[in-house]
Amino acid sequence: MLSTMQDVPLTISRILQHGSTIHGDSRITTWTGGEPHRTTFRATGQRAAQLAHALHDGLGIRRDDRVATLMWNNSRHVEAYFAVPGMGAVLHTLNLRLPAEQLTWIINHAADRVVLVDHTLLPLLAPLLPRLETVEHLVVVGDDPGDALPADCRPRVHDYEELLAGRPTTYDWPELDERTAAAMCYTSGTTGEPKGVVYSHRSVYLHSMQVNMAESMGLTDKDTTLPVVPMFHVNAWGLPHAVFMTGINLLLPDRFLQPGPLAEMIERERPTHAAAVPTIWQGLLTELDARPRDISCLATVTIGGSACPPALMEAFEQRHGVLVRQAWGMTETSPLGSVAHPPAGLTAEQEWPYRVTQGRFPAGVEARLAAPGGGFAPWDGRSPGELEVRGPWIAAAYFGGADAEPLRPEDKFSPDGWLRTGDVGVISPDGYLTLTDRAKDVIKSGGEWISSVELENVLMAHESVAEAAVIAVPDDKWGERPLAAVAFRDGPVPYGALCAFLGENVARWQLPERWATVESLPKTSVGKFDKKVLRARYAAGELDVTELTHSA
Amino acid sequence: MLSTMQDVPLTISRILQHGSTIHGDSRITTWTGGEPHRTTFRATGQRAAQLAHALHDGLGIRRDDRVATLMWNNSRHVEAYFAVPGMGAVLHTLNLRLPAEQLTWIINHAADRVVLVDHTLLPLLAPLLPRLETVEHLVVVGDDPGDALPADCRPRVHDYEELLAGRPTTYDWPELDERTAAAMCYTSGTTGEPKGVVYSHRSVYLHSMQVNMAESMGLTDKDTTLPVVPMFHVNAWGLPHAVFMTGINLLLPDRFLQPGPLAEMIERERPTHAAAVPTIWQGLLTELDARPRDISCLATVTIGGSACPPALMEAFEQRHGVLVRQAWGMTETSPLGSVAHPPAGLTAEQEWPYRVTQGRFPAGVEARLAAPGGGFAPWDGRSPGELEVRGPWIAAAYFGGADAEPLRPEDKFSPDGWLRTGDVGVISPDGYLTLTDRAKDVIKSGGEWISSVELENVLMAHESVAEAAVIAVPDDKWGERPLAAVAFRDGPVPYGALCAFLGENVARWQLPERWATVESLPKTSVGKFDKKVLRARYAAGELDVTELTHSA
Repeated sequence: MLSTMQDVPLTISRILQHGSTIHGDSRITTWTGGEPHRTTFRATGQRAAQLAHALHDGLGIRRDDRVATLMWNNSRHVEAYFAVPGMGAVLHTLNLRLPAEQLTWIINHAADRVVLVDHTLLPLLAPLLPRLETVEHLVVVGDDPGDALPADCRPRVHDYEELLAGRPTTYDWPELDERTAAAMCYTSGTTGEPKGVVYSHRSVYLHSMQVNMAESMGLTDKDTTLPVVPMFHVNAWGLPHAVFMTGINLLLPDRFLQPGPLAEMIERERPTHAAAVPTIWQGLLTELDARPRDISCLATVTIGGSACPPALMEAFEQRHGVLVRQAWGMTETSPLGSVAHPPAGLTAEQEWPYRVTQGRFPAGVEARLAAPGGGFAPWDGRSPGELEVRGPWIAAAYFGGADAEPLRPEDKFSPDGWLRTGDVGVISPDGYLTLTDRAKDVIKSGGEWISSVELENVLMAHESVAEAAVIAVPDDKWGERPLAAVAFRDGPVPYGALCAFLGENVARWQLPERWATVESLPKTSVGKFDKKVLRARYAAGELDVTELTHSA
Repeated sequence: MLSTMQDVPLTISRILQHGSTIHGDSRITTWTGGEPHRTTFRATGQRAAQLAHALHDGLGIRRDDRVATLMWNNSRHVEAYFAVPGMGAVLHTLNLRLPAEQLTWIINHAADRVVLVDHTLLPLLAPLLPRLETVEHLVVVGDDPGDALPADCRPRVHDYEELLAGRPTTYDWPELDERTAAAMCYTSGTTGEPKGVVYSHRSVYLHSMQVNMAESMGLTDKDTTLPVVPMFHVNAWGLPHAVFMTGINLLLPDRFLQPGPLAEMIERERPTHAAAVPTIWQGLLTELDARPRDISCLATVTIGGSACPPALMEAFEQRHGVLVRQAWGMTETSPLGSVAHPPAGLTAEQEWPYRVTQGRFPAGVEARLAAPGGGFAPWDGRSPGELEVRGPWIAAAYFGGADAEPLRPEDKFSPDGWLRTGDVGVISPDGYLTLTDRAKDVIKSGGEWISSVELENVLMAHESVAEAAVIAVPDDKWGERPLAAVAFRDGPVPYGALCAFLGENVARWQLPERWATVESLPKTSVGKFDKKVLRARYAAGELDVTELTHSA
């Protein structure tokens, strides 16, 4: 039996129309280094309409065409966020931190027809141009490109403001099927090629509602939010869409992501909320220690992207009265997956163990833990598994390319369609997620899992150990066993002594038999231990491995 | 181009599964007059599973079958709220305040196969039984029916607890299309037959998200909400569904809706939020004046159903520190249509003019004002029109009956599918709705509208007038013109003097030519002026009408 309710699609143009009328006076402030650029949701709605006309009439963009942005967090980028999906095209936000090789590959793979680019980023884009196969138009936002572009630039070059000038300030936004593609974002390909996630109007709309729920960010038009997280990084965690739904004011840092400017914009523009990865907050904290500023306007900052050191959370609360709220998500989850609100009725001290978890799932995110031996692990706070999630704003596949089928690699999607997150952790009986390892770093030993991170943390607590990494190596009897690679501070310590030290904290069957000493550990570009390199060195016989025999 | 997101339907069983696991410890407390009945979301989830098994295996209920409830606000009713739609059947909540005639008509029209009935309501149901055509089973919740039911009762009679006993506490909830019917509610038919609105899983899910958004109720699992509004009245404004989405604790008054018990349960159980119609709050205020109690636990009460007198809002704030938040909605809007949160940056005094409006629309509710002369009225705070709304939780039609097509009466739905609310009002430039009249009470005079409510308010401010009602009467020249019916306090006042008094406050062309004096005005069962009766009396020539000639 069908209901008698209206069948109104959940589309991004509805969010825009709502935000630019009901919340027309809400503000978008963009940091410029000098006097901030100030505009309203109303004016942004009008300019989004102009941009849609410009793309349609001026550049011939049609439904499903990909329009890329290589832009910082600024109000022009917000215009593109609404204009491109609103008209039925697909917004492709380019991650300006990717190596040139990957950026080129991604633009070609997405078959972007247009790139909107901040003029400050032209030096980054220019070298790529000869190898871009599908881009017909570059639209430069901001100053004149000057000599940043080659004279024989193949894509036609347009000035953003000239392109918009004189176009109508309203647009007859099409009534799209809510499952239509709206935006896309590639995950950085640490292994293999980058993979594109294609968000739908429906997923963006529902995610925006979730962001605005009291249990998530819980902001209203009385708030101002500062997304330091880039708009090319999972849609700045959905904030630009979410704010137009409820009128939250938006403060955008443009390219001024350094601790000094951030501290200044917070003190001057007084946001009540901000969102960023831990390294940004660590930098801000150091800055504030050196040059104190009043950031008490911030009620809450949301931290995600990687686990937040508890010391950082404590420092913000104690020194600045700012509550740090941890959240978990990934490109494939739009990204809101869980938020670490503690349960009701606890003291601040009792809340702490909950606040350092990855948090609880909202109703839109179903979760389960794929257990080492098959089946699913119980939510007992002890049994680990790989986190799998399901929900209307979670990916079912990756973009296969312009005319290709979507990709559903087995290691990323279960046969029944759940996303395999690649994260290993436990869930408590009351639903709090604690992540411990990346699945690829876990040691699968005889149907049980050994956490490499746990062993590393204990080893690094030893006074003589400077760095320690634990990787899985093949083992005839157990499938895999741990190998510990250690860099010592001064002189070496016998492996047996380190094993005994480990044995005080972890189960005996988890103790590594294989040990190697290294000068220092290989690291990734962001300073994490590069276990891929370490595994390759082991495979190539380049590590000097000692095998211990543990007594039973 | 399709997105790569998962296609997960928005269903009520997902809300239940989420609430009964992640928020399993959240509480449902039901007032009993004695020791309250206490349970958890976890236990309610288990009992909902048992009820679904009982309905399916015990009573043969299948997809789309209608299961009615004649119940107060209690935890058993919550079980039915989730079990019935969860299994794919349709929950039909019966309004126990309707006349027996209408209740019988509604049950037969919906073709209910089962009625779950609180034992305290059996005396109300028993007289209807001989004329119920489709009901096969009565399930009595609570005590033994005793002699409340006839010995030869046609539907089979079951005890709720016996029916559930021993059934499995989990249920394999089907993965339903989100547009499937979930629940239905009939509007009380003040004119013509009652009309059934059929909510879908999708509409309930989206409405629950909206209720939980910070801009609406904004509650979390740190809160306890007290829905005094009955669960047979537009799903208690969506609260029972909404609380399972985010773990808000639920306090339910059962049949104890009198001011005394309400005051006691608030003082003892300490809800942070409550929801009811103005008359309930008026009664509570009077009770608290007579017998003071501490209700300071209440941060906010949401008022809807009819316009809230500003004096009542002020009294709650000044005497009890409770913020009264006005909201607007109707059965056809699920009901959340607008909430009167003032804009940011105002003083308490400046907020007041916003708080007495019907409020602002959320992103899921599009609104327009159908103007008297055709087309749509501007949002200028002055131009009236009939409010029309559109959105994913708004009705497109009424239930046509078991095998009939849905009904789309022209006076309730526009040709392009918007709901005609029957409410007349204005919308300010910043999107605040102020309702003034019911559309049927507006006087349509020569392509302009005259507000009957405005004329009545001015007339009743005259010291000699006890009651005044203004109705539209046919007029050869203008189509309709106002007729004022007046009851005087003591002696009569010349109509010309009343006209002059009116003329100080309203435009000259709005002044009534036709006047009649009555002993007292006819009233409805809830004490409102019954203009339908007045119009009928005029049509039958029963009013002694004097016609004035206004000078130009």
